[in-house]
Amino acid sequence: MITEILIKNRFFKDLDTPTLEKFSSQARLMSQPKGMLLLSQDTPCDSFYLIHTGWIKLFKQTLDGSEAIIDVINDTHIFGETALFNDHHNSFSAEVVEPSELIIIPIHILETAIHDTPEIALRMLKVMSKHRKRQDIELENRDIKNAPQRIGCFLMRLCPYPYEKDRITLHLPYDKTLIAARLGMKAETFSRGLAKLKEHTDICIKGSSITIPSLRKIKDYTCAICSMTYPCGDL
Amino acid sequence: MITEILIKNRFFKDLDTPTLEKFSSQARLMSQPKGMLLLSQDTPCDSFYLIHTGWIKLFKQTLDGSEAIIDVINDTHIFGETALFNDHHNSFSAEVVEPSELIIIPIHILETAIHDTPEIALRMLKVMSKHRKRQDIELENRDIKNAPQRIGCFLMRLCPYPYEKDRITLHLPYDKTLIAARLGMKAETFSRGLAKLKEHTDICIKGSSITIPSLRKIKDYTCAICSMTYPCGDL
Repeated sequence: MITEILIKNRFFKDLDTPTLEKFSSQARLMSQPKGMLLLSQDTPCDSFYLIHTGWIKLFKQTLDGSEAIIDVINDTHIFGETALFNDHHNSFSAEVVEPSELIIIPIHILETAIHDTPEIALRMLKVMSKHRKRQDIELENRDIKNAPQRIGCFLMRLCPYPYEKDRITLHLPYDKTLIAARLGMKAETFSRGLAKLKEHTDICIKGSSITIPSLRKIKDYTCAICSMTYPCGDL
Repeated sequence: MITEILIKNRFFKDLDTPTLEKFSSQARLMSQPKGMLLLSQDTPCDSFYLIHTGWIKLFKQTLDGSEAIIDVINDTHIFGETALFNDHHNSFSAEVVEPSELIIIPIHILETAIHDTPEIALRMLKVMSKHRKRQDIELENRDIKNAPQRIGCFLMRLCPYPYEKDRITLHLPYDKTLIAARLGMKAETFSRGLAKLKEHTDICIKGSSITIPSLRKIKDYTCAICSMTYPCGDL
């Protein structure tokens, strides 16, 4: 089961059998409920995680108790591995925001593999490069897109790609307050932004269900001022 | 001369001689004036750069002509290397914002070294991890710090570390419009923010020269709401 999940992931796919076994033999699959704290900022980190299902929030807490969301990630994402380059300490906290199944692997296996297997080091570089691209887009979005456009971008990246039809119904993956925080906006800015996006693109909102009647329309409104080439997919 | 510059940099320091020679034998040192475009977004990239002196702006241009600043970096920083993980294309543009001396190295040397020398792959991972930390702080700053606090943070990170005295005079490294854009704010927000920071911390501004009479004061105002441990230095 664990090996099957691993080989479906870009990081582990097509690895030679001995290297894959080094990871799978010490990996554990676990289910975690909403609210579970998996990593705690500034504490030693002895494992890294691969998300199989669910959503995980990566965040930082500041001295005065505020919380800054770094990212909210789902399946196929890896986290915790950056502790290797931070004196084996977490530079952020990680919490389950929707019930999740995760594969947890001792970080020393990854550390040894990076040193011993150039292919693993290369894959690790690709993981970090992908994360860097996500962050670049996030910073760009905050600089030049307004709130409704940032929400539109968030929705489009939830749509299963390749797009098979122009009309799509999707469910918000986690609660609206967290989506707002993830997009760097206050809850009321998010509500106003969503209403404005509705005006511009005719989306239909029912609770956490959103119907996009025309992907083309939301694309025209959202992607026209982006540096990425459409369709960018979810990084 | 080139080898001397390389071995002072964290990425090349203490490398074995054959590996270092692979880089230095094909590296060129060049001076570039303000305004020179070094990398152009979405074009093939055959070199990467190490900044010896000066300041470089990394940015993205959007379809409607807006510009989003990703980072403004100075000496010891490397850029252009991410093309290796982006089909050998630049995912951003790079422009000289203050006259710069740069070392330019063919990217295929780095590519081969990453595959052949685990130590190089590891150092590359450290470079990317450091960049990720810079971006995490940037996103955190935009989430929870107000404009004067973000300017205070910017100024503190310009102060030479370790801090030898509480009173420091420093020069803004590039023009205020770009500093504002780098911090994700409009020019007028920057001006108001700087005036407010002056009120709170008694800094003295004369053109591009800023005197900080008390580092402790600016730290109390700026760092109290940060997730980083003081002093964070410049990442």
